[in-house]
Amino acid sequence: MAYQTFATPAVRPTDIHARVAALRARFDSLGVDGVVVPHENAYQSEYLPASEERLHQMTGFSGSAGRAVILRDSALFETDGRYALQAKAQVPGDLFTIVSTADDARTFLKEHLDGLRLGYDPSLHARASVERLSATVETVTLVPLSPHPMDGLWLDRPASICAPVRAHPPHLAGRSTAQKLDDIRAAMGHDALLIAAADTVTWLFNWRGGDVAHTPLVLARAFVPKDGPVTLFLDESKLDDMLRSGISGIATLAPAADYPAALTELSDGLTVEADPQGTSEAALAAIEAGGTLVASPDPAARLKAIKNPAEVAGMRDAHQRDGVAMAHFLAWFDEHAVGKTEIDCVKSLEAFRRDVGARDISFDTIAGAGPNGAIIHYRVDEASNRVIAEGDVVLIDSGGQYDDGTTDITRTLVAGTPSDAFRINFTRVLKGHIALARQRFPVGATGAELDTLARAALWNAGFDYAHGTGHGVGAALAVHEAPPGISKKGRAPIEPGMIVSNEPGDYHEGAYGIRIENLVLVLEPAVPPGGLKPMLSFETLTLAPIDTRLVAPHILSPAEIGWLDAYHVRVLGALSGDVAPEARAWLTARCKPIADIAG
Amino acid sequence: MAYQTFATPAVRPTDIHARVAALRARFDSLGVDGVVVPHENAYQSEYLPASEERLHQMTGFSGSAGRAVILRDSALFETDGRYALQAKAQVPGDLFTIVSTADDARTFLKEHLDGLRLGYDPSLHARASVERLSATVETVTLVPLSPHPMDGLWLDRPASICAPVRAHPPHLAGRSTAQKLDDIRAAMGHDALLIAAADTVTWLFNWRGGDVAHTPLVLARAFVPKDGPVTLFLDESKLDDMLRSGISGIATLAPAADYPAALTELSDGLTVEADPQGTSEAALAAIEAGGTLVASPDPAARLKAIKNPAEVAGMRDAHQRDGVAMAHFLAWFDEHAVGKTEIDCVKSLEAFRRDVGARDISFDTIAGAGPNGAIIHYRVDEASNRVIAEGDVVLIDSGGQYDDGTTDITRTLVAGTPSDAFRINFTRVLKGHIALARQRFPVGATGAELDTLARAALWNAGFDYAHGTGHGVGAALAVHEAPPGISKKGRAPIEPGMIVSNEPGDYHEGAYGIRIENLVLVLEPAVPPGGLKPMLSFETLTLAPIDTRLVAPHILSPAEIGWLDAYHVRVLGALSGDVAPEARAWLTARCKPIADIAG
Repeated sequence: MAYQTFATPAVRPTDIHARVAALRARFDSLGVDGVVVPHENAYQSEYLPASEERLHQMTGFSGSAGRAVILRDSALFETDGRYALQAKAQVPGDLFTIVSTADDARTFLKEHLDGLRLGYDPSLHARASVERLSATVETVTLVPLSPHPMDGLWLDRPASICAPVRAHPPHLAGRSTAQKLDDIRAAMGHDALLIAAADTVTWLFNWRGGDVAHTPLVLARAFVPKDGPVTLFLDESKLDDMLRSGISGIATLAPAADYPAALTELSDGLTVEADPQGTSEAALAAIEAGGTLVASPDPAARLKAIKNPAEVAGMRDAHQRDGVAMAHFLAWFDEHAVGKTEIDCVKSLEAFRRDVGARDISFDTIAGAGPNGAIIHYRVDEASNRVIAEGDVVLIDSGGQYDDGTTDITRTLVAGTPSDAFRINFTRVLKGHIALARQRFPVGATGAELDTLARAALWNAGFDYAHGTGHGVGAALAVHEAPPGISKKGRAPIEPGMIVSNEPGDYHEGAYGIRIENLVLVLEPAVPPGGLKPMLSFETLTLAPIDTRLVAPHILSPAEIGWLDAYHVRVLGALSGDVAPEARAWLTARCKPIADIAG
Repeated sequence: MAYQTFATPAVRPTDIHARVAALRARFDSLGVDGVVVPHENAYQSEYLPASEERLHQMTGFSGSAGRAVILRDSALFETDGRYALQAKAQVPGDLFTIVSTADDARTFLKEHLDGLRLGYDPSLHARASVERLSATVETVTLVPLSPHPMDGLWLDRPASICAPVRAHPPHLAGRSTAQKLDDIRAAMGHDALLIAAADTVTWLFNWRGGDVAHTPLVLARAFVPKDGPVTLFLDESKLDDMLRSGISGIATLAPAADYPAALTELSDGLTVEADPQGTSEAALAAIEAGGTLVASPDPAARLKAIKNPAEVAGMRDAHQRDGVAMAHFLAWFDEHAVGKTEIDCVKSLEAFRRDVGARDISFDTIAGAGPNGAIIHYRVDEASNRVIAEGDVVLIDSGGQYDDGTTDITRTLVAGTPSDAFRINFTRVLKGHIALARQRFPVGATGAELDTLARAALWNAGFDYAHGTGHGVGAALAVHEAPPGISKKGRAPIEPGMIVSNEPGDYHEGAYGIRIENLVLVLEPAVPPGGLKPMLSFETLTLAPIDTRLVAPHILSPAEIGWLDAYHVRVLGALSGDVAPEARAWLTARCKPIADIAG
């Protein structure tokens, strides 16, 4: 098991200054006025192996999304609202202008990039991101540099990991690679499809790997023609003989290093689909050198996101076990939290997950006590680790990787008695969570159409959260999975079989953070009794009490209380027989109806 | 006053057959396999002078949005959900495949246009619409044909109107043309701006005209350089000496017929902004022949949509008078509706508006009794006119053009006693209306982010409406005004000073329609008490009772009842002193709190 470590990130400000200076010293010989350092690697992944942490090494920022633009006399560090506070804490403000909204980034770039030559590595950037940069500053000249000039400056760069691949068994995968290929080919509109997203390739081949911490990805890409074998770009040493023979007739292996150059010959005379949001500029250029590119969303990514019955069953089973682990942890927290640290919480939760059979955590646990909870994607280390005091609010966002499923759950806890003001704030977030959980919606509705429902109560009171409401979740795969997303930007329809998170929040900088997250499964459309149109709906998969002691019942409607009570009846029924005997009384108390708590 | 007429639209099916056959007979000489007939004219307007009603004459469809694609052996008629039922009633189904969703239109076009040559008039189509067509069917060849071949087949085409222009006085306009030009130039990012939207030009010059029924547009376009005089494309005979001298030094006149050809010389060496959503392909091509085009939203349209204090005051005053007219009408309806017709309602409402000083109606009144109410944009004529029976639901969507403002209001009425089922359905629409009216939202939120709030209660019960929730409204100008829109497609931020409609609905085909519409003004951001972030909010401008006898109070929350009661207190306070003495008791009864009605 590759669980969490707590060493304070090792990039010292002096290293950052030295690296930025060394990079700038190379500008003249590279023929540029600046260089972009992206978070993404050549797989355009959110989660990276240590050997690909260029942005972290160059800026000190250890989060999962961001970009630096280093110019001669200035430098930009940009990330999103989830990481606004973390970036300020980690990135040297004397070197970088730090921004956390797209608007602020655009303002900086327009002011500083006019007429300049900017170096970038086309193997690291998705084309859509390159195009956005060009559109922001029409006068900038983008100069391709490959490999990234950072790589030559990073002397202690770790070796890349080449983990063995294991088979994801048929009873969990639900469909064979051949069947999935049939589905993909039926959805393809052209001669061939490039699947650049490693999690989609991993799903297609019913494999799981260990190339990246906490996400059982196999780093691979696939070129799928309408007929004939798939070309699979992959380090061959990852496969044993059994796996190699399993793909014979379906795919031929090509060295990972031949990507993207080999795409030119593969595309010869063909019309090839690829997703410019998730495919590198270098790969798309290689396709265009051989054939005709059609930029379109990857149909395989959508098929991956629509879970089949075996995957849904696996996800339910994983949530059953994860619910037991969460009940044990929440009971432990109630009794022991005061005086313990954030790291103690992370370790305790990991141990409870291990006990129920988790293979790994699904991401580094976010355990933020007091003000640390207001850092949306906080990751505790030894330097930041806080002792939990009586009355502290503690936000815990965590998940497990099980053989049959992936979980992601956030609970906000209080070590002791919450204030009335906190309970009002907590209940507003809960209203948003319930509004989305209860909402029916028509076929074709996108995540963007649903996002506001979780914000409406917060907006009316003068609050908001600087992150999306929900993301897709893979089945024993990536905890963040495209294409579904419940956010302003969520353009993909939310379809039956998709699994997404429901996680509104409310963050009080310097004080505490609140977030309530369950995963939900999208159910088939049905006409509600008395209604006219078929509507989709959500079933909540996550099974863990939402602490009713933190609720202000007077600002809940009867329908909202009804949802919460029914949820706790379900949680109690599902978990009661499986939790340890000493946790059963705790679970029973925490699953009581609101009327009993308030009364 | 140019009020409504009720003659059944004169296009007979035999005329349609003859025109379609005559058009097809010209395909070979035109070198095409088909021709597009758009609703839009060369001003890309929604509302047209009779001389521009090509789509109506070719298909029989009299609504305000649609398109026909006439091929050798097939033909498509497409419109949107508001007109689905009307299109089926008006367009010959033996000639046209009639669709009312973009998806169905795409399916037809993909099946039928592959590899064909399709004629279109580039002066009638916005570039964005041409590009969408090309993207839908990559293999189609678009063949420019100008003038539109329909024009030669339409022998009884009315002459075009050339109405005189009048000045919109300074106390209503609020800012002079010179001040508005300063604002526009400060918002421009390039050398020049083409304003192709006639309502924006009308606003800029503080004029009002009579070229189009019910909308005081002046059909004109303006080319605005960063420095120097504006070039105004306009039929000079519309201006008297006073108006002509008023623009001296600000603008020079160019003959309307020189548009778009003259844009090439005007653009020479310049970078010119224009909005591809609302500017013809022909105009953008003319710019590109002379200079560099930057396709971007028109900054002047946004400035027009943000009303200044004088415009807001005018809109409030117009709503005060319109509220009096509505109260008189609603009281009349209560007493007299049974046995009267839809046309009687339209005439009665027109008379009450005339009495309070309306210059015109703002669009043809939608007065749909029973099943006609389910036709979202129904327009009564002598053939469709229904007698109102006891118990009938009647949907009335209407507005007035006043010197100082434009109104748009929908009320759903019942001639007698509503059924319980109807009251539940009515109340669900009301919940949506109230949800939007009460919602606060952050700076930058778009109409798309707000749209779902008005649908959530309907979706949960299995209902939806096939139209947007709200549109922008001009100040004594167009009743539909870009850029704000509360709909799935509403990408523009909703900004302080904008005025939009709030009009959810519920339509039961063959039975009745429900819609509740008020106009709302967007207020400046303010931090709600106890909150953290500044939030925008709405103030309802429309003043007319929402019939509480149709409400099922048990499905309203206390907050919703609170909104409704407070609204009625405001309506009573505003109108009581101004309504005719015989309507005062009616108004007082209709403005009672819900508790009094239900109790």
